[in-house]
Amino acid sequence: MSIHDVVASTPLVDNHAHAVEPLDRDRVTETFADFFTEGELAPKHARHTLNYRVTLDFLAEQFGEADEATLLAHRADVDPESYSRELIDETGTETILVDDGFPDVTPDEFGAYTDADLRPIHRIENVAERLLPASESLNAFEETFVDELDDALGGDFVALKTVIAYRTGLQVRAHDREAVRQAYDEVCRNWDGRVEQPIFNDYLVHLAADVAASHDAPLQFHTGFGDADAHPQFVNPTYLYEFLTAHAQTPIVLLHGGYPYTRAAGYVTATLDNVYLDLSLATPFVQHGVEPLISQALELAPTTKLLYGSDAFSVPELYVLAARRFRADLTSVLDRLHADGFISESYAESIARGILRENAIALYDL
Amino acid sequence: MSIHDVVASTPLVDNHAHAVEPLDRDRVTETFADFFTEGELAPKHARHTLNYRVTLDFLAEQFGEADEATLLAHRADVDPESYSRELIDETGTETILVDDGFPDVTPDEFGAYTDADLRPIHRIENVAERLLPASESLNAFEETFVDELDDALGGDFVALKTVIAYRTGLQVRAHDREAVRQAYDEVCRNWDGRVEQPIFNDYLVHLAADVAASHDAPLQFHTGFGDADAHPQFVNPTYLYEFLTAHAQTPIVLLHGGYPYTRAAGYVTATLDNVYLDLSLATPFVQHGVEPLISQALELAPTTKLLYGSDAFSVPELYVLAARRFRADLTSVLDRLHADGFISESYAESIARGILRENAIALYDL
Amino acid sequence: MSIHDVVASTPLVDNHAHAVEPLDRDRVTETFADFFTEGELAPKHARHTLNYRVTLDFLAEQFGEADEATLLAHRADVDPESYSRELIDETGTETILVDDGFPDVTPDEFGAYTDADLRPIHRIENVAERLLPASESLNAFEETFVDELDDALGGDFVALKTVIAYRTGLQVRAHDREAVRQAYDEVCRNWDGRVEQPIFNDYLVHLAADVAASHDAPLQFHTGFGDADAHPQFVNPTYLYEFLTAHAQTPIVLLHGGYPYTRAAGYVTATLDNVYLDLSLATPFVQHGVEPLISQALELAPTTKLLYGSDAFSVPELYVLAARRFRADLTSVLDRLHADGFISESYAESIARGILRENAIALYDL
Repeated sequence: MSIHDVVASTPLVDNHAHAVEPLDRDRVTETFADFFTEGELAPKHARHTLNYRVTLDFLAEQFGEADEATLLAHRADVDPESYSRELIDETGTETILVDDGFPDVTPDEFGAYTDADLRPIHRIENVAERLLPASESLNAFEETFVDELDDALGGDFVALKTVIAYRTGLQVRAHDREAVRQAYDEVCRNWDGRVEQPIFNDYLVHLAADVAASHDAPLQFHTGFGDADAHPQFVNPTYLYEFLTAHAQTPIVLLHGGYPYTRAAGYVTATLDNVYLDLSLATPFVQHGVEPLISQALELAPTTKLLYGSDAFSVPELYVLAARRFRADLTSVLDRLHADGFISESYAESIARGILRENAIALYDL
Repeated sequence: MSIHDVVASTPLVDNHAHAVEPLDRDRVTETFADFFTEGELAPKHARHTLNYRVTLDFLAEQFGEADEATLLAHRADVDPESYSRELIDETGTETILVDDGFPDVTPDEFGAYTDADLRPIHRIENVAERLLPASESLNAFEETFVDELDDALGGDFVALKTVIAYRTGLQVRAHDREAVRQAYDEVCRNWDGRVEQPIFNDYLVHLAADVAASHDAPLQFHTGFGDADAHPQFVNPTYLYEFLTAHAQTPIVLLHGGYPYTRAAGYVTATLDNVYLDLSLATPFVQHGVEPLISQALELAPTTKLLYGSDAFSVPELYVLAARRFRADLTSVLDRLHADGFISESYAESIARGILRENAIALYDL
Repeated sequence: MSIHDVVASTPLVDNHAHAVEPLDRDRVTETFADFFTEGELAPKHARHTLNYRVTLDFLAEQFGEADEATLLAHRADVDPESYSRELIDETGTETILVDDGFPDVTPDEFGAYTDADLRPIHRIENVAERLLPASESLNAFEETFVDELDDALGGDFVALKTVIAYRTGLQVRAHDREAVRQAYDEVCRNWDGRVEQPIFNDYLVHLAADVAASHDAPLQFHTGFGDADAHPQFVNPTYLYEFLTAHAQTPIVLLHGGYPYTRAAGYVTATLDNVYLDLSLATPFVQHGVEPLISQALELAPTTKLLYGSDAFSVPELYVLAARRFRADLTSVLDRLHADGFISESYAESIARGILRENAIALYDL
C-alpha cells in the first residue's frame, strides 16, 4: 500500500468530539454559519470564513449546485438521524470519544445519529456545577466530586475533560486548603450556576488529575482558540507547565493542537512524558492551516503522542469536513517527509496508523 | 478575468499609512537604509535586511544598475514631489488613510506628493500631549480631549489611532476615577512632553474608544513589531482582549497583522465581531514573509475583516514596495487556495476586492 | 559558483556546541534515543521523534541496513575518538565554540575527538556554583566571580554563556543591592549546589553582561526549547527585552533561534543593534522545521546577525546531522529567495558565507 492508501483506509478513532443535536429549522436556514466559527460574529462576517465557504461546497455536493439559501433549505429538510449516520459513516470512524459537556444530548441519544462506537468523556466543570448547590461543606463537596469522577472512570467513561481554559485560564496554580476553603465559600455565596473562580477552578482540575492518575486515564484540556469567552492569552498551553510537571502520573491531552500556539504545544508534548497532543477543532476550522498544523506538530513531538480528533459538534458536516481535511493533509505531509528523505515509506505508514487510530487506542485503553 | 487580473486591477484603499516627507540629502545618501528597518541598527546591519536589498533593486530599476552609493546619489537628486507622485501613481492607490501623528507633514502638505485621495486619521497620544500642558484639571483635560476627538470624527477624520503598544503596552486595563486622577497628577508633575504612564495611557484609549463608538468610526491600534521602544512582549494583540470585549461597539483595527503574532491576531479577529485586521508594515518589511502572513490571516479570520495597508512613511518607495509585494502574494495565496479546492475562482476574486478595497470602504464609510 | 556550491564549500564556524563524551556501552545500546530529544521521555516515545528516526538512517548509512538493535550494537563498538573525528571532519567545520558547562569534558579533552579548532565559552552559572561555597560575603563573591569572567575573556575564552532560561526564566530584572544581598544570603543558607534564585540569577547575568561589554565579547543566552526543567513560557526571548536594552554595549546572542518563538526572536534581533541570533539545537532537532526556521529568521533580521550553530553534545552524530540539515535547508531557502526575485545570486552567496562563517568571525573576533 502507498502512504495515501494507508491514510485513506485506516479507521479513525476520534479522540475528542461532541454529539450531533436536532436543530430547529431556523438554526439551519438563518444561522447555520454560526456552527463553523467559534466567534460571536454577525452574519455578514460569519458567512465569510473559509471554513463556512468549504461547508457550502459540501452542501452543494450533497444537494446539487444552488445558491446559499436554497442549499440551507435543502439542509433543513433532511432527516437528521439518517443524514448524520450517512455523513459520519463516510468518515470511516470506528470510535468516537464524546465530551458529555455540550450539547445537551446524552451519548446514548447520540447513538441514533451514528453507527460508530461511542465512549463518553466526563466534563468536570459540569459535574462541579451540578454538585455544588447541594453541597454543605468543602469536604462534602470534594467527596461527592471525587466519587463521581472515580465512578465515571471505573465505569464507561474513558477520560475526563476540563474547560478551565475558558473559565479562568491555563495558568493553573497550587493553592493551600485555607485558600480553597475561602474560594469555595465565595463560589457558594455568589452562586450563579457557573464555576468561574480562579482558585476554585484550579482546585477542581488538581482533584481531577489525581483521580485520572489513579485510573491511568487521560485528562483532556481545552487549549488554543475557541469561543469568545476564552482569553486568547491564557489558552496558551505553555501556561500549564507547572501543572503538567506536578501531575507527571496523569496522562494529559492538550486539545486542538493548541492553535495558534501549535509549535509551543509540540514543544511541551516533546518534553514531558505524560503530555499528548490532539489536533481537533483546528481540524477543520483553519482549513489550509491544517497542513502546517500537522507538519509543525511533527517537528518536535514524538509521532506516538499525536492524536486525530474532530471536535465536531451539533452538525454532522463537521465530522466529514474534519476527516476529509485531515486525511488529505496527513497524506500530503507524510508524502513530503518521505520525498524529502526524513522518513521511510513504511515509517510514514506507521505514523499514519498511529495518529489516526492506534495512539488513541493505547492511550485510552480502548 | 482571472484571480491575477482582479488583484492587479482593483484600486487600493490603503487603510493605514503616513505622509511622504522632504528629506535632507544626507538622509538619502548616508542613512537611507534606516527607512527600511524599524530597528535602531548600525549601518553595517541596517544595510543587510532583505527589505533594504529589495529597495536597492527597486532603485536600480529606476536609475539603472549601479553600486549602492551611486543609486543613493541618484535618489537624492530627484524632485521629491514628482518622484513621489509617480511612484504612488504606480501603485493604483485610490485612497490613503493618513495617520497624522508622524512625520511632521500635514495631510494637506502630503497632497503635493500624491494624486490619491487623502483621508486623515487622528493619533490620540499627540492630541493628549498637545492639550495636557494647558489643562487645569483632569475634568477640564478630559472635556477638551473628548471634544477634539469628537470634532475630528465629526469632520474630515475617518478614524482614531493609538500607539499605546509603544508606550505602556497592550494589556489595557480599566481604572477607577481616583486612580486616573492620581495618574493625571503624576503626569502633570513630571511633564516631559510625552504621555507614558500606564494608567493614564489606558484611560486615554478608553475615552477614545467611546468617542469612536459614538461615530461608528474605527480605532486603530499599533500591534506587533515596530520601533525599538516597543516592548516585544506587550505588542501582542491577545493582551488587548479585555479592552476589545469591553468596547464591543467600537470597530477596532489591529494594525500590522500583529506580526509576529499573526495567527493569534487572526484568532482574535475571528472571535470578536468588532475586530478587524490590517496587514500593513509587515507588508513589505517581512518580504518573503508576506505570503505566509496573508495565508495565516485567512486561516481563521473572515475574509471581510482583512484590510490592505502599507504603513508607508517618509519615502514613497515604501508605497510601491508594499503594493507590489501585496498584490503578488495575495495572487499567489488565492491561486493556491483555489487550486487546492478551498474556494471557487469567483469567491477568490471577491476576497481580493474585499481586502484590497471594499472592506475598508465599508468599515471607514468612505 | 552556484548558491549550492557556496553553501556546500564554505567552512563552518559552529558558534555554539558542546564536547563529545565517551559513553558507556549501555548508554548507546539502551538509551541512545535520549540524545535526540530534549525531553524526559520513556523509550516508547523517545524512539519516535523524527530527529531520532533520521539518526537511525544515518547509522544505517554508516553500518549498513539493519534493525535498530543491530545498528546500536555496531555504534557501541566504534572507537569513540576516531569515529568522532571522522564524523566532525565530514561537516567541514573549521572552528567550534565550545560551551564548557556540559558535558564533563574539558575543551582540551575534546581535542581528541575532533580536528576542528576549539575556542571555549564560559558558562557563568557553573562559575558561580564553584565560587559560592567558599565565598564569605556578597562583595567577596562578586569580586572573585567578576575576576574569573574577566580573566576568561582576557584569555582563551571567546564568549560567556548563561542558562538562566532554565533556572529562573528570561524575564531578567534589575534589583537593588539590598535585594541582591538578601538573595545571596538565602542562596548560601539553603546551598544545594545549584544557583536557582530569581534575584540572584538575574544579578549574575547583569554582572556577566558588564564584563562581556568591557571585552566587547558576546554573552550567549539559551532561549527557546530545551530540557524539561525549562519553563516553556519563560524561555521566550521577548521576555529579555529590558535586559537587552539595558546592556546595549554587550553583544548578545539569542541561542537556538528562540524556537518556537523564532519570528519573535527575529524581530528582537532586527530591532536592537546588539542582538544576534544563533540557529543551533533547533538545527537539527526540528528536522523539516529547519527550513522554515531559517526562512523566518530572514524575514526581519539582518543577514549579518544570523549565526550557524549545532549545539551538538555528547555524540558526534549531532554535528553531522546539524551540518547536513543546515546546508541543505540554507541552500533551499536561498535558492527560493533568489528564484522569487528577493535577492541576487551573488547576494545570496554573501548571505551564505556570512551565516555559515563570517558573521561569527566578526562577532567573536576569531
